[in-house]
Amino acid sequence: MTTDIQQKPQLKLPPIHQQVPVTFHYNVHFTTGLFQLDNPLLAQVITADGAGPKQAIAVVDAGLLPHHRVLEQLVAYSQRYADCFTLDVAPVIVPAGEAAKNDPSLLEKIHWTINQASLCRHSYVLAIGGGAVIDLVGYAAATAHRGIRLIRIPTTVLGQNDSGIGVKNGINAFGKKNFLGTFAPPYAVLNDFAFLSTLDERDWRSGIAEALKVALIKDAGFFEFISAHAEALVQRDKDTMQQLIYRCAQLHLAHIASSGDPFEIGSSRPLDFGHWAAHKLEQLTDYRLRHGEAVAIGIALDSTYSYLTGFLAASQWQQIIATLKAVGFSLFVPEMEQSPQAAPQPLFQGLTEFREHLGGELTLMLLEDIGRGREVHQVDLDLYRQAISLLRDNRVEDEKGR
Amino acid sequence: MTTDIQQKPQLKLPPIHQQVPVTFHYNVHFTTGLFQLDNPLLAQVITADGAGPKQAIAVVDAGLLPHHRVLEQLVAYSQRYADCFTLDVAPVIVPAGEAAKNDPSLLEKIHWTINQASLCRHSYVLAIGGGAVIDLVGYAAATAHRGIRLIRIPTTVLGQNDSGIGVKNGINAFGKKNFLGTFAPPYAVLNDFAFLSTLDERDWRSGIAEALKVALIKDAGFFEFISAHAEALVQRDKDTMQQLIYRCAQLHLAHIASSGDPFEIGSSRPLDFGHWAAHKLEQLTDYRLRHGEAVAIGIALDSTYSYLTGFLAASQWQQIIATLKAVGFSLFVPEMEQSPQAAPQPLFQGLTEFREHLGGELTLMLLEDIGRGREVHQVDLDLYRQAISLLRDNRVEDEKGR
Repeated sequence: MTTDIQQKPQLKLPPIHQQVPVTFHYNVHFTTGLFQLDNPLLAQVITADGAGPKQAIAVVDAGLLPHHRVLEQLVAYSQRYADCFTLDVAPVIVPAGEAAKNDPSLLEKIHWTINQASLCRHSYVLAIGGGAVIDLVGYAAATAHRGIRLIRIPTTVLGQNDSGIGVKNGINAFGKKNFLGTFAPPYAVLNDFAFLSTLDERDWRSGIAEALKVALIKDAGFFEFISAHAEALVQRDKDTMQQLIYRCAQLHLAHIASSGDPFEIGSSRPLDFGHWAAHKLEQLTDYRLRHGEAVAIGIALDSTYSYLTGFLAASQWQQIIATLKAVGFSLFVPEMEQSPQAAPQPLFQGLTEFREHLGGELTLMLLEDIGRGREVHQVDLDLYRQAISLLRDNRVEDEKGR
Repeated sequence: MTTDIQQKPQLKLPPIHQQVPVTFHYNVHFTTGLFQLDNPLLAQVITADGAGPKQAIAVVDAGLLPHHRVLEQLVAYSQRYADCFTLDVAPVIVPAGEAAKNDPSLLEKIHWTINQASLCRHSYVLAIGGGAVIDLVGYAAATAHRGIRLIRIPTTVLGQNDSGIGVKNGINAFGKKNFLGTFAPPYAVLNDFAFLSTLDERDWRSGIAEALKVALIKDAGFFEFISAHAEALVQRDKDTMQQLIYRCAQLHLAHIASSGDPFEIGSSRPLDFGHWAAHKLEQLTDYRLRHGEAVAIGIALDSTYSYLTGFLAASQWQQIIATLKAVGFSLFVPEMEQSPQAAPQPLFQGLTEFREHLGGELTLMLLEDIGRGREVHQVDLDLYRQAISLLRDNRVEDEKGR
């Protein structure tokens, strides 16, 4: 007996509506000297579920090696806490910065190492490094056995207050940032402030951009704190930076927990204020700009546009620009107006790519007050060109009486 | 000013406890003749969120092409419903069966096509084929832009009642099944019964194994239904098969929705009754066994072990074996006792791999009644060897008086 392909089914079978609730939990810890032998935090986190010793592998950012004895410390620490965990294979060293996300063989190497070490889903992958390295390792860990426990140990300001604490990972492909990746919360995040002491000036500063971003859309008081402490931040005052990281992490985490759409199933991404231009400028400058430096420009651009379009008062706009400058950010690069007559201007291609990555309708966050954002779905490119020329000519003060 | 790496922080910053709730929704539809021009279901599902026309790509199982005019139908259907969606690039054809999951270049090809078609997260990837093809396409869609909407159109019994309706995807790597993959619910599942008419006998039968599996651990009434209709199933009665698929899908979906652990963060996987042996036997036979054929053997083995260990009554065990045989399954392959003196026996390596994939403690589902499972964390390999020899010698009836 065979079924006639044209024949309608005799049974009426209604659709089954499926609903799958999942709740993820993780802790973000703050410490100094994570791998010091008298610091039990890492061992405690690894054995918090009761069983042990656990298997682990470590992936380490090559950029740390000139400044920190991470490899030796890892060996000594794992020996001291041998009842809690073992590192059976040598740490994988991956290049620092965006290079970590541009080389697909690094992903394969981490997968290969996970298999070599016979890790199971309840084993651990330790990702130690800057935001880019953590994005790469997170993607590898999330896709092996459909997800091995990931402990993120971010070593930059940006990693500790933003990219290292959220629910995303990713690598670049086809010339597009984060073309490949997943949503996958970590098992835990361990922020070690000791790593910040050896950051170069640009990396120290870069992480402040994401703090300013979240302050501008969520918390006017936090913006005032950063404005008031700009000089202390430039002078690398440790306590001020720790307070900035903690508050920024709190705001990011609270948003992710309460947004109702942590896996971005909709079209809105309110935390990405200033980011459409930032992502594109990183690419247009061949990653000469650090992510935070590009975000600072993106914030300046979207704040200026918010002012020109009438949402934001001139005084607030000027305070934003002044704070970005006081922290030491440059707010213009020539790539912002490369081929200004070209249609479309290369920078504005970033709007299309931002929409394409997120899906659905274009949704941009602008500002209507310090501490309060406002979403729009259309933009006026002529006004954006005006905003760019204001930033290029550093004419923010001239606009005072406008 | 630099930070002294030995210095303890002066601020006491408590850990931040993060909780991320996410709820996924999708519908599983049942139809016959999905691509017939008078069937609006696919177009309706694509435009259910209001916007349109949407972009889509299709990935098609090569095994369908000799039997179904899928490629021509897709073109005609997309032209008929051009206001709802467009297929701007040619469908990607991928090999049928496990070959789809063994060739990493296929994953790259789908990613490349997604990029070529400029799909966004709210675009659609249509996965049309058997369970293996759907696993591959699901992994590709879940990792591009961190997740493009996936519409699964499973064309086998197994795909329609089990693998195509759940929250997992994956491909094989390092010789291990599903070494790479993610948890990612689909956007929708469209089960088209018309595809079943051209399945060969083995594929028709294979899907019945997963129905028996879920019946044995969840629903004694459903097991009775399958037992009573074994002959109709062998005779390829369409209505009986549709009822089997619908009930099996209901049971699987209800379990995923209510298990409390749909993304398998813990160590328990109650739906994987019979699967530790099944996964290993597929590999040991170089995939000569279909997945469902291997699951039938795994069910026979774990039911026999459940009887030998004293959990399951002899009469129930015999009824299970008799039903598996009545549907037409073979319950022994020589690979089950290859090198019986070898330690460990190759089959039993499957227990280790099952634990490794899942993580944590070994957790196996056995039966204590038809319709009721029971988890164990230890096994007696000598009893398993007895179970294997009972199945080899077809001595189930001899045990009646035991």
